[in-house]
Amino acid sequence: MSDQYKFLLTENDIPRDWYNINPDMPVNPAVTAWNAVLHPQTQEPVTPDFLAVLFPMRFIGEAVSLDRWIEIPEEVREIYKLWRPTPMIRARRLEKALDTPAHIYYKYEGVSPVGSHKPNTAVPQAFYAKQEGIAGFTTETGAGQWGSALSMAANFFGLECHVYMVKVSYHQKPYRRIIMENFGATVTASPSNKTHYGRSVLENNPDSPGSLGIAISEAVEAAVMSNGKYKYSLGSVLGPVLLHQTVIGLESLKQMEMAGEYPDVVIGCAGGGSNFAGFAFPFVHQNLTNGKNARIVAVEPTACPTLTKGKYTFDYGDTARMAPIVKMHTLGHDFVPAGIHAGGLRYHGMAPHVSALVDSGHIEAVALDQLDTFEGAMMFARAEGLFPAPESAHAVRQAINEALKAKEEGVKRVIAFNLSGHGFFDLTAYDEYNKGNLQRFEYPEAQIAESMAHLPQVTL
Amino acid sequence: MSDQYKFLLTENDIPRDWYNINPDMPVNPAVTAWNAVLHPQTQEPVTPDFLAVLFPMRFIGEAVSLDRWIEIPEEVREIYKLWRPTPMIRARRLEKALDTPAHIYYKYEGVSPVGSHKPNTAVPQAFYAKQEGIAGFTTETGAGQWGSALSMAANFFGLECHVYMVKVSYHQKPYRRIIMENFGATVTASPSNKTHYGRSVLENNPDSPGSLGIAISEAVEAAVMSNGKYKYSLGSVLGPVLLHQTVIGLESLKQMEMAGEYPDVVIGCAGGGSNFAGFAFPFVHQNLTNGKNARIVAVEPTACPTLTKGKYTFDYGDTARMAPIVKMHTLGHDFVPAGIHAGGLRYHGMAPHVSALVDSGHIEAVALDQLDTFEGAMMFARAEGLFPAPESAHAVRQAINEALKAKEEGVKRVIAFNLSGHGFFDLTAYDEYNKGNLQRFEYPEAQIAESMAHLPQVTL
Repeated sequence: MSDQYKFLLTENDIPRDWYNINPDMPVNPAVTAWNAVLHPQTQEPVTPDFLAVLFPMRFIGEAVSLDRWIEIPEEVREIYKLWRPTPMIRARRLEKALDTPAHIYYKYEGVSPVGSHKPNTAVPQAFYAKQEGIAGFTTETGAGQWGSALSMAANFFGLECHVYMVKVSYHQKPYRRIIMENFGATVTASPSNKTHYGRSVLENNPDSPGSLGIAISEAVEAAVMSNGKYKYSLGSVLGPVLLHQTVIGLESLKQMEMAGEYPDVVIGCAGGGSNFAGFAFPFVHQNLTNGKNARIVAVEPTACPTLTKGKYTFDYGDTARMAPIVKMHTLGHDFVPAGIHAGGLRYHGMAPHVSALVDSGHIEAVALDQLDTFEGAMMFARAEGLFPAPESAHAVRQAINEALKAKEEGVKRVIAFNLSGHGFFDLTAYDEYNKGNLQRFEYPEAQIAESMAHLPQVTL
Repeated sequence: MSDQYKFLLTENDIPRDWYNINPDMPVNPAVTAWNAVLHPQTQEPVTPDFLAVLFPMRFIGEAVSLDRWIEIPEEVREIYKLWRPTPMIRARRLEKALDTPAHIYYKYEGVSPVGSHKPNTAVPQAFYAKQEGIAGFTTETGAGQWGSALSMAANFFGLECHVYMVKVSYHQKPYRRIIMENFGATVTASPSNKTHYGRSVLENNPDSPGSLGIAISEAVEAAVMSNGKYKYSLGSVLGPVLLHQTVIGLESLKQMEMAGEYPDVVIGCAGGGSNFAGFAFPFVHQNLTNGKNARIVAVEPTACPTLTKGKYTFDYGDTARMAPIVKMHTLGHDFVPAGIHAGGLRYHGMAPHVSALVDSGHIEAVALDQLDTFEGAMMFARAEGLFPAPESAHAVRQAINEALKAKEEGVKRVIAFNLSGHGFFDLTAYDEYNKGNLQRFEYPEAQIAESMAHLPQVTL
């Protein structure tokens, strides 16, 4: 076992292939239809034509591929080299502060130029678009994590990037908006008068603060109406996005080997599921094929408890019912989570792959309150110096809980979690926490029951 | 020559010793008195007693040491491991964008938890205070770079940290204030009613926005009045601070060796001089003792052209004339620079070591306008993904200028610069630049002439 803090790989260690979990899904697609994608109007399986309006062909190809390993294009690996491989760090000072026999490792994706794991998929998506002669992307963003990643990637390939940013964030959180504009993107506060849907929202409510659901609908409409000039880009949920993120876990496997240990528990926060899957799926693969049996834990907020309180069934991907229907854990497409600071975890659904694996028992799920997660983030920061993003703080807190449990049980346990991004742009949330302004959220039972009554009636 | 982007060292490569340039200073102290420190009232050389009120003894010992190598305490190296060694990165995409034969390398100090080089000295200063039984520090900060570094270091050693933050920044730039508070520091908007000096300022001008000079005076007074409970901590200018920063250049020497090249030009931005000296002095050492002859270039803003337009003479370290008098390049202690965004470069003086080496011709100095530096920062960011701090942008722009000159001359040239920090907390400055709101600043000739008339009359 190494006595180091940091486990660093060289550029040559950046994976050559992404890990595609499709062929290893331990569930029968015919039975569970976990990978069915239905048209939002007809509720029939979609045709490639329908998807091709929205996504580059190579992206669609990845979604249906059954190849276990999909080669990372050299052009993508070249750009990955700007920040990858990311470090795996043993949180020795946190271990000491907790006085635990557990060993705590974290994979740190915050070293990317925009501060999160998001560029891992933004770069290949932009590369595919460039290859296919597409002029650029439309997309949506909440606080701006995804929008800034896609703006950077588009800039690298000389593509346009048109971002619909939730209006309240556009005005309250200018930093990521500035990053997007610095990279040459146009950023539009949503709802806007640039789309039919945006105008219809503004007609009903001129002061609408916007929502991710509205922004998705505007971005999708803008791509559809561009006659193929632009494609739509999504930063989570979809299979190819999860695929691209597996560089995180593949590097982590090598780094744990450098550390001379193997994790007993693998932890990631889950909103749409992409950072979680990217970190965890290569460990799931080891469980399935290599005789390992690490516990794999997805952490979500109690305010949006998709995996722990949702139903595994068919639902729309968006609020406006313009996106396809997929089988996933859902709280109902019109569920509106409380305004917690972990904006990236406020999604009513979950990646179908993650949902299926939770349903089949291969992945555990746990929900944590935001007060507990900020408390954990502060313990981490005081020990390690680094402020986690509010989303990543859920993984941090769960790792601390596991370490304290190990202490209680008096056992050495190896805990690995993904620190998907830094919290430098979310410090006002820490300020609110310090001032005692953050609320504890109970499970919104009544609200969930209400939205669950609106699920589509799919017979497949 | 390597084809890599990043040159990474392991924790074992963190230097064991800092490089102390005192014994190698190629100037005769008796003649130039570059290291004389005079009492602000008597203008006589200060006694150790005077300094001991302000600084830990070990810190004072470093200031006068003639040992070329000073061992880095193991407790300090342990904490350095949280972010050191920092990467040296070949800016291949920038080279391509500039279409230059030059090779551009940058040492990236922005990976520290607070985003700059400042913790390199904050940690040993806090360790010395802890060793000497001091309860904590008082200090000043402008935008908060230094305050956040010292707060983190104090937190690690269980010390108090009392930061006087320039009032206008306290209100306009809450992010670093929040970081300091997260680390348990008390942050007071300066001028405050906590000190005699602060109250006197507020009496004359209740709406004073504050200044670094005022904040220094409040922090010094608070330390002096604490009867030894607190010491005062400074984040630049002083010899020991420069010494602690030499880890930057010492690592860089090893990393250039990994890259199989040696720089023809070594560049850093210079405000008080600490990141510049930390990066450059080990290369100066190579020039002096090892037959190398890299050009060493300090870059400052035209709005505060200390090295290029100031006088090399005796002046007070602060505006209120409470700090000692030293020999340095100065624009006059009551010179007030324009409100450029590179707040860390708005200092009327310069580290005595750096000043003496500029005076002796061992270091070149150049001044750049903030419009040019932001243009350079944008070129860098669009190519490399990363947004430099406005201070570091001066080094970026000079590196670009050197690369373009190499292109013009058709010669391959190796350029290395220090990217002392990221600009994530300074993005509103980029926004101002994008909107065309930034001004070009001419040399403030008349204003300099005015302040230069107020220099102390020292006869040494």
